Amino acid sequence: MREEAVRIGLLGCGNVGSALVRLVQDHGQSVFSRTGLRLELARVAVHSITKPRACELPEGVLTTEAGSVVTDPSIDVVVECMGGIEPARRLILAALESKKPVVTANKELLANEGPELFSAAAASGVDLLFEAAVAGGIPLIRPLRESLAGDRLRRIMGIVNGTTNYILTKMTEEGQTFYEALADAQTLGYAERDPTADVEGYDAAAKAAILATVAFGAQVAAGDVYREGISGITPDDIAMAERLGYGVKLLAIVEAVEGELAVRVHPAMVPVAHPLASVRDSFNAVFVQGDAVGDLMFYGRGAGGPPTASAVLGDVIDAAANLRQGRVAALPAGGPARIRPVDDLRSAYYVTIDVVDRPGVLEQVAAVTARHGVSIWKMEQLGLGDEARLVLVTHTAAERAMQATLTDLRHLDVVDRVGTLLRVIGED
Amino acid sequence: MREEAVRIGLLGCGNVGSALVRLVQDHGQSVFSRTGLRLELARVAVHSITKPRACELPEGVLTTEAGSVVTDPSIDVVVECMGGIEPARRLILAALESKKPVVTANKELLANEGPELFSAAAASGVDLLFEAAVAGGIPLIRPLRESLAGDRLRRIMGIVNGTTNYILTKMTEEGQTFYEALADAQTLGYAERDPTADVEGYDAAAKAAILATVAFGAQVAAGDVYREGISGITPDDIAMAERLGYGVKLLAIVEAVEGELAVRVHPAMVPVAHPLASVRDSFNAVFVQGDAVGDLMFYGRGAGGPPTASAVLGDVIDAAANLRQGRVAALPAGGPARIRPVDDLRSAYYVTIDVVDRPGVLEQVAAVTARHGVSIWKMEQLGLGDEARLVLVTHTAAERAMQATLTDLRHLDVVDRVGTLLRVIGED
Repeated sequence: MREEAVRIGLLGCGNVGSALVRLVQDHGQSVFSRTGLRLELARVAVHSITKPRACELPEGVLTTEAGSVVTDPSIDVVVECMGGIEPARRLILAALESKKPVVTANKELLANEGPELFSAAAASGVDLLFEAAVAGGIPLIRPLRESLAGDRLRRIMGIVNGTTNYILTKMTEEGQTFYEALADAQTLGYAERDPTADVEGYDAAAKAAILATVAFGAQVAAGDVYREGISGITPDDIAMAERLGYGVKLLAIVEAVEGELAVRVHPAMVPVAHPLASVRDSFNAVFVQGDAVGDLMFYGRGAGGPPTASAVLGDVIDAAANLRQGRVAALPAGGPARIRPVDDLRSAYYVTIDVVDRPGVLEQVAAVTARHGVSIWKMEQLGLGDEARLVLVTHTAAERAMQATLTDLRHLDVVDRVGTLLRVIGED
Repeated sequence: MREEAVRIGLLGCGNVGSALVRLVQDHGQSVFSRTGLRLELARVAVHSITKPRACELPEGVLTTEAGSVVTDPSIDVVVECMGGIEPARRLILAALESKKPVVTANKELLANEGPELFSAAAASGVDLLFEAAVAGGIPLIRPLRESLAGDRLRRIMGIVNGTTNYILTKMTEEGQTFYEALADAQTLGYAERDPTADVEGYDAAAKAAILATVAFGAQVAAGDVYREGISGITPDDIAMAERLGYGVKLLAIVEAVEGELAVRVHPAMVPVAHPLASVRDSFNAVFVQGDAVGDLMFYGRGAGGPPTASAVLGDVIDAAANLRQGRVAALPAGGPARIRPVDDLRSAYYVTIDVVDRPGVLEQVAAVTARHGVSIWKMEQLGLGDEARLVLVTHTAAERAMQATLTDLRHLDVVDRVGTLLRVIGED
């Protein structure tokens, strides 16, 4: 690296990329005075030179030749802000092979092709940093890897998708249905026109895989993550949860259990006094439990151009400082994780059952739960006649037993439909 | 440094020191497998060899000769867990002069003698790390220095003293008086027999000085911090704050205003929807606002042996890895900060005034506030006769005008006493 400047090659100049450009332009001088690093956006690869964008760049910086940026000998650090698997994967591999450190915010790529990328970085002896890939602007990856390096982590529970947290907040505070809240989120630009990746938990599952890899040092891919979304949750479920002293949140959970890693994404009932319960709107938060450190939580903006660009820039400064000092940050290491099947989970459960309103229904339902060893903590009937619905909350039970219970309940003549299933997070 | 082991010289083996010993013993193997660093507690300096302590050490490790530990050529990293100014200061300087990296959790020392220590570390080209000095186990210093290096911070507001947060939580949730809650805290070991350092805000002021130094790159000492404690707060104040939609918290606040740094510690009314409002019991949390990153919060255990030792161990691993790679972490730099006088603050205020219960009182009080340009948002009379008390909440006003108002109010015949003054934190 030449002493005079850190030459950045940026791939993609959309929401995050253009926020990064503005951040470097606005804060470059103060970064220099604090770190001695003079950041220069040397080349920016885009699809179309003429497309309007939210930042201004000197003439000659924009190019459509992404492939030439990642191998350009004058580029010191490559920043990937394109998203998606290809061509991001191919370009990052080319940059790493050219011995250039890479900074990326690409959760989808890391959650699917992480091991290949980390191997390539290790083989070339350069940094591959990705603070922005999980929980946007919240400093999380670096604290997990460095500050907590001496502790043994037990569990991570995160609200890592802002769209679904916004929807659940609206459903909770304004009594909206899922689809009303979704429409609001779409109007505000918090949700895509096709919201599947957010509302069905795919985005959170990718982040869970990355968190598991970073915090527990074993490879976990997005496909390893058990996943349920929030589209089936009703305002009634949320109102009932509130009456019981809980909020409903979509959680990404990673926990070490008996030498295995349990990694899952599903809506859950969180006690109101739990720090995660008060995380509102589109904010993210990640709750971490370690043997020594106890309970930690990291809270902030999980998405949006400027917060994400702030995390990317922190990584760029780190990569540039490492390059100058001939140092490399540790990469996530370790072989494939032993993934614990979701069937082996133990949890308390909330479940709603639409039933025929006649004497003896409760008895039949209770007989099914008892047969599977699922013990009921609370049972309540809502509505009457055709609208009759039972709400059960169980004590801690085995997931396997609970699923078998639901199957048997569905076969009862008096049961029309098994509705929402929510797992209940304990106070510990 | 010898390849085979990182030899740690530990100064002090009390609450934090012995937790560190247990952590190294319990997690040393997993630290080695993840980082390649084999940690060894080579020498532990204590006051008395025979005093019982909460950890076991091999024979020959304990010594009463702290001075010989810090200059011992076989020691790679010195960890200071003694607390207090001397002899900690002298020993750390000797270690730094012997070119040994130092890890410390000593907030009092850093807040009073930080510049001397940082200069010594810079002169020797070794690390001086102190993650545990503010907010115990919460990873905070590293994220502020590294993850947010590309952002411009505007404000930090922290609940950084667990004792006072425990007391305020008890007063809020159980209606206890300050002294009842303090007695509880003392019984549980959360408060010292002389609780002055905690309840009068000295501990929080030291942490505010360190946060200001780290986050804003300018020297701030404990004595620069404006400071008020919580001993004057009554259950009535807290009940009134709740009715108005606020919680009462002791906050350490650092903010950049017009090229100056405002650094202060005082109790404040925090809107219930603010993330800081739901931080209960002895937990700490630090809320950070940056230009790009927006709002962040870091939450966790601010004290206690194991959480603090977790942060110390993260620093030890960092220092050892840096030593092996011939690298040094950045030190806080910059000259003395321009401290903004508290008189220049602008805030909304809550104030209670014990008054004589007779017609015309309100008018006299209102005339005083109006004369100083302090505009009233709410005014309410509590109690009757000898117990009559006015509660005022103002719109945003100048501190100088508010203090002049209080002085004039004290001179009114109808005013017996001006009681609690709380600054009100806005929603932004």
